[in-house]
Amino acid sequence: MTLLYLSTPERIAVWAPLLAEAGEDMVVGEEAVTDPAAITHIACWMPPRDLSRYPNLKTVISVGAGVDQMPPLPEGVALSRTIAPGIEEMVRDWVVMASLMLHRDMPRYLEQAGRGEWVTHHARLARTCRAGIMGMGRIGRLAAQSLAALGFPVAGWSRSGAPVEGLEVFAADTLGDFLARTDLLICLLPLTDETRGLLNAPLFAQLPRGARLVHAGRGPQLDMEALRAALDDGRLSAAMLDVTDPEPLPADHWAWHDPRIVVTPHVASHTDPEEGARHVLAVMRASREGRPIPGLVDPGRGY
Amino acid sequence: MTLLYLSTPERIAVWAPLLAEAGEDMVVGEEAVTDPAAITHIACWMPPRDLSRYPNLKTVISVGAGVDQMPPLPEGVALSRTIAPGIEEMVRDWVVMASLMLHRDMPRYLEQAGRGEWVTHHARLARTCRAGIMGMGRIGRLAAQSLAALGFPVAGWSRSGAPVEGLEVFAADTLGDFLARTDLLICLLPLTDETRGLLNAPLFAQLPRGARLVHAGRGPQLDMEALRAALDDGRLSAAMLDVTDPEPLPADHWAWHDPRIVVTPHVASHTDPEEGARHVLAVMRASREGRPIPGLVDPGRGY
Repeated sequence: MTLLYLSTPERIAVWAPLLAEAGEDMVVGEEAVTDPAAITHIACWMPPRDLSRYPNLKTVISVGAGVDQMPPLPEGVALSRTIAPGIEEMVRDWVVMASLMLHRDMPRYLEQAGRGEWVTHHARLARTCRAGIMGMGRIGRLAAQSLAALGFPVAGWSRSGAPVEGLEVFAADTLGDFLARTDLLICLLPLTDETRGLLNAPLFAQLPRGARLVHAGRGPQLDMEALRAALDDGRLSAAMLDVTDPEPLPADHWAWHDPRIVVTPHVASHTDPEEGARHVLAVMRASREGRPIPGLVDPGRGY
Repeated sequence: MTLLYLSTPERIAVWAPLLAEAGEDMVVGEEAVTDPAAITHIACWMPPRDLSRYPNLKTVISVGAGVDQMPPLPEGVALSRTIAPGIEEMVRDWVVMASLMLHRDMPRYLEQAGRGEWVTHHARLARTCRAGIMGMGRIGRLAAQSLAALGFPVAGWSRSGAPVEGLEVFAADTLGDFLARTDLLICLLPLTDETRGLLNAPLFAQLPRGARLVHAGRGPQLDMEALRAALDDGRLSAAMLDVTDPEPLPADHWAWHDPRIVVTPHVASHTDPEEGARHVLAVMRASREGRPIPGLVDPGRGY
């Protein structure tokens, strides 16, 4: 059982001693593979193009929380996405920051600051701003908890509508009801065929006038031109985007320079190298012992 | 017992029915006072220059949480500052926002966004950033609770060092120890003779290199030139300021245009008119019944 790891020198420096300590073999980079038949696991962001080179490959492990970048894998090869408390907390922190920035009019104050303008606007209590989180996975539930603790009335929306303690959760078929009660829309959905392009004009039209958007899902879920039109006609009043389509966002893209939008370059989370390595070790252990693989992705759902 | 209220038409519109409902008399504006001897309470940001006109004045009520703008009051006139949960929650929200913005490198990302630059920097977990709050009043304790819930290791500093449950609190004479363990310094102190100019070069020199500053106390506590020097030599790496000296900050002030600093125009809190009126009603009731006055300011301490 050998891991093939495709990553950067800094991350490899953290992983090498952790795998050695756990007694697991690791090969770094495809060019270092002398016996392809020994490779049972590959940890990477993007897998090698030709996986048929590895006849005994069991699992490909995405080093991030998302797997939408992954091509279809050969029959019999499982896909695991890194489950790490650090990723979840980091995204939660970014979402709380972005929510407060929109709630407290930071895009407007930043624009004014550029002109040296000291002008105040009416500040509102968090309890007057209904937050709505799309995606009730581990990150969504964590964000819901933190926003509720700050006083925001929070509801969730998920495909299944499965109940979450202390939270009103809307199911897929009640999206309209969810949107109608949402002043601050937060997208944390995985990218799937169902969520691609979901944040579009018909969806925005169901939000209360002047709603705000926090997007930390995946770029292709958002129709950027629909966002611009919704801002122009007052349906939306501001947005914070950590993901865009395309990424990187080109330097001359209008969204960088629209004062109603703040863009960050996909930095809401970042897998801590040590946590990433621990996830891979857990996958290898489970695989050896025939137990369920941590972070196993359901190819049908896509996450 | 009559209240003299000095405020804006919008706020007066909220107060008038609340005072009427409570059966309290209110006069709006000094020019409307026909019987100065009837005035027992004045609610205002700045009191009239000549208070000797009101021989039966008992209490001046500041409509904000701070009273540093208040001139000395005549012998026998008490000073009350508005205690309102809304003010405290709003400042807490701004402080949490500012703390996350600095922790997650927003000043740098905003500067990059201005150039359309998609460049990522290493994100860190909240638990790696030790927050230190100066001022352990109601707002300080609320902010400490929220930041701790996000995973920041939090300590407090106060004149008395009085214990706060679940928090390490340093007393005035251990300021050096407090600063040495503080990566993110948050100032929520009231303005007094002791705190004027407290955020200066010798204080910054005791922080770990690259520390960050969140300032939501009062402008004159911060030596802006010392801040600039500390940023230039790397002692501090970024700052969020909601208060400045002077206020408003002039349009051509360097701090507006320094990419390491984000300035907001004193908007961390804003007294909700209804909450403000309820505080005044509570003061009038207490005064009539001879009970302790809510929000009573100790003239010796200055808050």
